[in-house]
Parts: sequence; C-alpha cells; structure tokens
Amino acid sequence: MAKSKANQLRIAVIGGSGRMGQEILSLAATDPSLEIVATVSRRADLPAPNVVRKMSGLPKGKIDVVIDFSLPEVLDEVCTWCKTNRTALVSGVTGLSAAQKKKISSLGQIIPVLWAPNMSVGVAVLAEMLAGFKSLQGFEFQIEETHHKHKKDKPSGTALFLQDKLEAAVGPTPEPLAIRGGGVFGIHKIWAMGEEETITLEHSALNRRVFARGALRAARWIRGRPAGVYTMADVIRS
Amino acid sequence: MAKSKANQLRIAVIGGSGRMGQEILSLAATDPSLEIVATVSRRADLPAPNVVRKMSGLPKGKIDVVIDFSLPEVLDEVCTWCKTNRTALVSGVTGLSAAQKKKISSLGQIIPVLWAPNMSVGVAVLAEMLAGFKSLQGFEFQIEETHHKHKKDKPSGTALFLQDKLEAAVGPTPEPLAIRGGGVFGIHKIWAMGEEETITLEHSALNRRVFARGALRAARWIRGRPAGVYTMADVIRS
Amino acid sequence: MAKSKANQLRIAVIGGSGRMGQEILSLAATDPSLEIVATVSRRADLPAPNVVRKMSGLPKGKIDVVIDFSLPEVLDEVCTWCKTNRTALVSGVTGLSAAQKKKISSLGQIIPVLWAPNMSVGVAVLAEMLAGFKSLQGFEFQIEETHHKHKKDKPSGTALFLQDKLEAAVGPTPEPLAIRGGGVFGIHKIWAMGEEETITLEHSALNRRVFARGALRAARWIRGRPAGVYTMADVIRS
Amino acid sequence: MAKSKANQLRIAVIGGSGRMGQEILSLAATDPSLEIVATVSRRADLPAPNVVRKMSGLPKGKIDVVIDFSLPEVLDEVCTWCKTNRTALVSGVTGLSAAQKKKISSLGQIIPVLWAPNMSVGVAVLAEMLAGFKSLQGFEFQIEETHHKHKKDKPSGTALFLQDKLEAAVGPTPEPLAIRGGGVFGIHKIWAMGEEETITLEHSALNRRVFARGALRAARWIRGRPAGVYTMADVIRS
Repeated sequence: MAKSKANQLRIAVIGGSGRMGQEILSLAATDPSLEIVATVSRRADLPAPNVVRKMSGLPKGKIDVVIDFSLPEVLDEVCTWCKTNRTALVSGVTGLSAAQKKKISSLGQIIPVLWAPNMSVGVAVLAEMLAGFKSLQGFEFQIEETHHKHKKDKPSGTALFLQDKLEAAVGPTPEPLAIRGGGVFGIHKIWAMGEEETITLEHSALNRRVFARGALRAARWIRGRPAGVYTMADVIRS
Repeated sequence: MAKSKANQLRIAVIGGSGRMGQEILSLAATDPSLEIVATVSRRADLPAPNVVRKMSGLPKGKIDVVIDFSLPEVLDEVCTWCKTNRTALVSGVTGLSAAQKKKISSLGQIIPVLWAPNMSVGVAVLAEMLAGFKSLQGFEFQIEETHHKHKKDKPSGTALFLQDKLEAAVGPTPEPLAIRGGGVFGIHKIWAMGEEETITLEHSALNRRVFARGALRAARWIRGRPAGVYTMADVIRS
Repeated sequence: MAKSKANQLRIAVIGGSGRMGQEILSLAATDPSLEIVATVSRRADLPAPNVVRKMSGLPKGKIDVVIDFSLPEVLDEVCTWCKTNRTALVSGVTGLSAAQKKKISSLGQIIPVLWAPNMSVGVAVLAEMLAGFKSLQGFEFQIEETHHKHKKDKPSGTALFLQDKLEAAVGPTPEPLAIRGGGVFGIHKIWAMGEEETITLEHSALNRRVFARGALRAARWIRGRPAGVYTMADVIRS
Repeated sequence: MAKSKANQLRIAVIGGSGRMGQEILSLAATDPSLEIVATVSRRADLPAPNVVRKMSGLPKGKIDVVIDFSLPEVLDEVCTWCKTNRTALVSGVTGLSAAQKKKISSLGQIIPVLWAPNMSVGVAVLAEMLAGFKSLQGFEFQIEETHHKHKKDKPSGTALFLQDKLEAAVGPTPEPLAIRGGGVFGIHKIWAMGEEETITLEHSALNRRVFARGALRAARWIRGRPAGVYTMADVIRS
C-alpha cells in the first residue's frame, strides 16, 4: 500500500469482483485524488489493491468511505464494520429486504450513509427536475424505459424511482411502459402531455461506468458529513 | 357550378359535414387544379359547393373521383353509384365489416378503387421503408404510438397497419405500446434494436389536414387508372 | 355587455384582430370564469365583444387585467392607460426597444406587470428546470430548435431565452442550432452530454393556442398582486 | 494454427493493434464459424493468432478474406497481396487519396472488393431507406449528427455519406448539423419535414463493435463472389 497523500480519499471497495466493483476499481485507478486502500472479494487473485476475503481483513483507521456493490447477504457484516469503525458507507446494493432497509436507516443515526438504487448523477438530476411538473395544469404523464433484452425486471427499478418522484409532484400516473431489445444500455423518458404542448425529459446511460462515477462522487461528498441517511439528491444539491 | 377548366380534377365529397370531409373541402378550395363538383351531406346548409342529400343527387358524367369519408352505413350506396357511373373511388371510411371489405375488392374489378385507413403520405412512406428491416439480423422490434387522451382505440389502427408491414419483413413482434395524453395529434415510432446499434423511425402528424392532403393526392393519382384495388403504397410509388 | 359574475376575471384584449388576439378571444369564449369586457382593434367588424378602436374607448373601473398582443407602436398608449386606471398588464408584445423595456420596468413600480416573449407554461417550466444542470460536472450543452420554414428569426427568441437560463446554470454554451422546414410549430431541445450519460429536455408546441392559454393563466395570476414586474416563472411557481 | 473446420471463414486481419483491429479480433474470437488465420501488426507481442509484421508474412492459399482497418500508407501493399493471391478484400480504411480510391476500383476487376467508410449494417439499412423519401412532395430535409467531444471531423463522414444518398432521392439539402459533447458514440438523424407531418429516421451506434460486426458480415458475404467493387448496400440486400 502506497502512502496516502494529503487529502486523498481513502476507499474500500466491497464486492470487487462484481461488474460494478470492477468498474469502480478501474475508474478509481485513473484518479490520483483517490486511494483504494483495500478490496473485499472472494477472488484472492483479483487484480486489485490489497484484496482481502472478509470485512474483518480491512485495515482499521485508514478508510474514509466504504463503497459496497456486493450482495444483500453481506450487508449485515458491512453495516457492523462501518458502525464499529465509524466509517461512512456508500451502498448501491439492490434487492434489500425491508429489514435491511431499516437497518440502513438506523445506521444513519451513527454514521453518514448513502444508499441509492441508481448512482448515476444524471438520473438524480432528472429526478429532481420532476418537481417542476407540479406547475402544469391538466397534463397527463407517462414514464417509458428501454433496456437490453437481458434485463429481467420490468419496469426497471430506476423507472419506479422516477415514478415516485413524479407522483410526488403530479399525483397518480400510469405504470411505466417497458421496451426490451438489443443492447440498449438504459433509456428513461418522462412524457408530460398537455392540450397544446408536450414536454419530454430523457436520460440515456451510455455504459456501466456512469454508476461508478456517481458512486465515487457520492464517496467524495460523504466524507466528513455528520451522521445521517443521504441520497444522490443530497449529493447533487451541494 | 363554375365551368370546369381543362385538366381540373372533378371531385365529389361524400360526408362533407364530417371532420375529414370539412378538411378536404377546405384544402381543395385553395387548389385551382381541383373542382368540387358536388358534396353529399345531410346538412343542407353546409357551406360547400352544390350540396345534395343523397348519392342519387350527384350529377352524372361530371365527376372524375368520388372521395368518401362518411360512414360504413352509406358504403353500399356509394359503391353502387361509382359502379353504375364508372367513377373512381377513394375511400377512407373505417369500421368496415368483412363483407364490406370484400365488396370493395369486388368493385376493383370494374373501377379503380383505393381504400386506406390512414391516407397520410408520410405513413405510407414509412410503411414501405419497414421492408428494409429484413436485412437486420438478431434485432428486436417494437412499435409505439402516442395520441391525445380522447383517442379510444388502443393501439391505433395505424400502429396495427405498421405492425403488419413490419412483421411481413421481420416476423412476429410484440404488441404496439400506446401512450395517451394531452393533445398529441399522432406519433408513431418503430424501434429496431440490435446488440450494438438502434434504429428508430418516427412519424408525427401535425394536424388532421395531413389526411385530406393524402386523399387529394390519391384522387389525382387514381384518375384514368385501370380498374383495380389500390393502396397508398401504389400512390407513392409512382 | 353581460353582467359580470362574482369572481369572473374581467379582461380587455388589445390587438384583437391579430393572430394571438384571436386565439385569446377564442379560448376565453370557452371559459365561463373569464369575461372579455372589451376588445381594442382597428377592425370595427371584428366578431368580438365590445370592440373599440382605441384605448380611450375602454370602460373605466370594469377591467381587472389588460392583455396586450398588439404592436410596439401602441405600447406607450397601453402603458399610460394601465397606469392611469391602476389596471394590471400582461404583455406578449415583441420587438420592443430598450426604452420600451425600461418603460415596462418603471410601470412595475405602480401596477403589476408581466411581460414575456413566450407565454407557454411548458417553456417556463422547462426554463426553470435548467437550473438543475448546475449539478452536472464535465458536461457539454447544446440547444437546438426546429420551426416551420416561414420562421425568419434564427435562432428563435425562445431558444435565446432558454440559452440565457442555461448559461446562468452552466456557463457559456454554443449558439443554438436551428432547423427549418415544413409546418413544425415549434420544438426546443436542450442537450446535456456527459462522458457516460446524456440528458435531453424537449418542448413541443402543438399550436398557437398554447400561448393564449399561458396568457390567460398569467392574467388570472396577476389579478390582485402588488405592483411589480413579473415573469412566467413567477406564475408557475405559485 | 488450429486446423480449419469445413466451411469456416478464414480471415486475415490487417492493422490488428488498432482500435478497430482489436474489436474484430475480439468479436471473431467468440464465433466458431470464423478462423483468424493471421494478423498483421507492427506489435509482435499482440495477443492475437499468428501475428506477422508484414503482408509478405501471410500464409498463401489459406485465407478467404483480408480485412483491413489499418492505414492508407499500407493500402498499396494490401492491394498487391490480395491481387497476387486472388483473395477477397474488405477495407474500412479512411483518409484515402483519389488515386487510392481508383486503385480499389481497378482491383475490383480482378478480385471481389468491398470498401466502406462505415461498416455498420444499421447505417447501410438507413441509407437505403432514404430512397423512399423521393415520394414526398414539398418537404424540407435536414441531417443532424451528434458525437463525443473528441471527434474532429464535422460533419461526420457518415453524415456526408447519408447526405449523398438523401440528395440522390430529393435533391439538394442543407449542410448536416453537428453536435459535439460528452461521450455520445454516434447518433445520425434525418429529418423530413412537410406542412402537416414530420418523419425522422435515427441511428445510434452503441459502441465500436458495431463496425466490427458489420465487417465480419461483409467478409462472410464476399467469399466466393465474382470480382467486382461492392458496398454495404450489396451486403444487406442479399
């Protein structure tokens, strides 16, 4: 482990061999303001800095933020470690149970925690914009999402997240429409349709790296924050 | 009735008081190469040339093409008149029974007939383009249509027409998706999605006049053709 | 003049024979909560309520809001009348000189005034959303507008208005791109392009009535406000 | 070199260390119906089958198709080798001089040759569709392309290729508009705008692999063809 430079953000990546874990490791490697202090992975041969197999192998007192893109099964262990070591947590783990979501909320009373099903900054920006639709009178709304044919959930979790935000502004809307085909990485479109005008907002993810970039931005943002449960909306607001 | 100029196309409009009938009358009035010889309408006070209440009131030997945008109930009468008077027919009447569709086919053995559920030239052009998709390998396809909230059929007849054309090229595709809201006049979009590239074709009707313009183009085209059943694809091809 | 009902908004329309004036008269006629008290027009035969030829012909004490879509030449007269009669003004007159714009600002010290180059509520909503782009890091931006082939200004005034709002959030951006063709009523699109994601916001006006609807909403909103210079952003915020 | 299976297409890749060369090698490796017989590259350590430094190192009589994505400097050598060995050539080399283009044409009298500035099948399909626009009367047209900020040519070569095809159908059109920003891999959009309807055709490349896939499809197609100069349009037609 190279000596940390002043002000470098010291990160541990949980789930380093997963697709998102690898994106984060690869993106972080290009940024001298970040230091990957350690990586938790079951693959000991992972080409990453200081691979350890378990949370218990992480060095204490040397990590500013834990970034977790592993699996719900590990969540308890991750939460416990962060709590014990008073280390901020950025989690993009999906498929959490209600109990696990509650666990994250409780954790926010002790350390700063950010959980998001979609870490893209662009989706966060779009989601915040939806509040602006409350000024429209007599409009209908529809969310539509397009993804590659291998995507199983329908509609996407991001579409449901956007629908929550939209409905907070304009009331009930129809279920999001889903298009599946080819290799489309991820398009989300929100229609606002009035008698004499139509507004559409659209977000296109070009690749998976967009989520890694958002996670690293969240990690930078959360260092030094007071305890609390945060979202990507907090990150982009400041 | 003003004397027809040489080469003017002499038209009778059936269903002159309907929304499409009025569009045709209004568009034709701006074009000196067209003469509205007579209009069939139950509204005697319709501000249109030579309004008569019934097909039997139409002048014989003075009409090149009958344009019918009235109702299925009148179709028999319209067909009989055109057959007896050997006059070409352009029909945009929807909601026909199977027997009525057959009647139109039979009529094509005696006079030139064109029937189309959507007379827009742009939709016809788009529909022909879909054959080009047969060159794509390993693509998924999806049709999507957006219309104002008052539109009742779902998916639109035009979407189903486009799906027929699409499936002739690429095989079975999912049911068209329908979005309803505001005053959108009519958008049809065809997605072709491959692993590494996406193609979309989109048609937007800006107003109802587009169908009137197509009907008049069809009427010009059909004058002097041999007996037969034609479609908008024939009109745009030549 | 029919007796005003309680709470009806009493309006005078200046420039009643212009295209926008006619849209406002036609839309207002369908809304029982509005009363067109008088119309100023040089065309005495205009089919509108209580047509007078000059501002001086307007009834005093019976008008809540003056809506002006006439010409810069009349602006002085309109301002003087509103000031003298302490009547709110909603103006969509374009092509104002710097001196005239200043006149409107001064007027705002005495009565409530709203001036906007584009009264569409949707454009106002979109314009406010652009502030959200300030959260994006390392993005490029581009505005693009599409209008019918008869539109002379290039880029459109609305595109320049949107660019102002955009640049307030993200700094300098390239000149808006303009596409001209057919009968497109008006499309404005804002691109935000990052390394791994793209956001686009798009507004489509379906017809001219959208501006009339916005003007009437502004008129309803401005009644009873304190003196001041307002914009459509104020209208949609509350 | 593993023994070729019956019917396997035997390929040599020229320019194996370039970005397109690597895409082709990587894509071909996943397809058992293809055999990379040899790779020409200046990098001897390239992780590819049978790397040789020069055309002269290629095995004779064992290659069905040469795929060249190297540089104009090598074109003469490549052409000579293919001519001498009567081997089909698929070339995606750009920046050719007029003399070099002529050389390719001449080569087509002896062997089958395909050259294309954009090997994407989708762009070829779109380009063929443009002929359908000749049926539109009174429309305006505009091509628009969007690419990442590092792209230097403006408008893109593909936009100019599409404009050629478009103008063959509809006559002169304005210069393509270019948008540059972020990491957009490549979007090409063709607008057809009429008084009452708008058609848009859009192609989005999701990644560079789309060109490799097209090149391999072209290679499969050209094996066993008679001598001649072919384009991607020929490939997709059959």
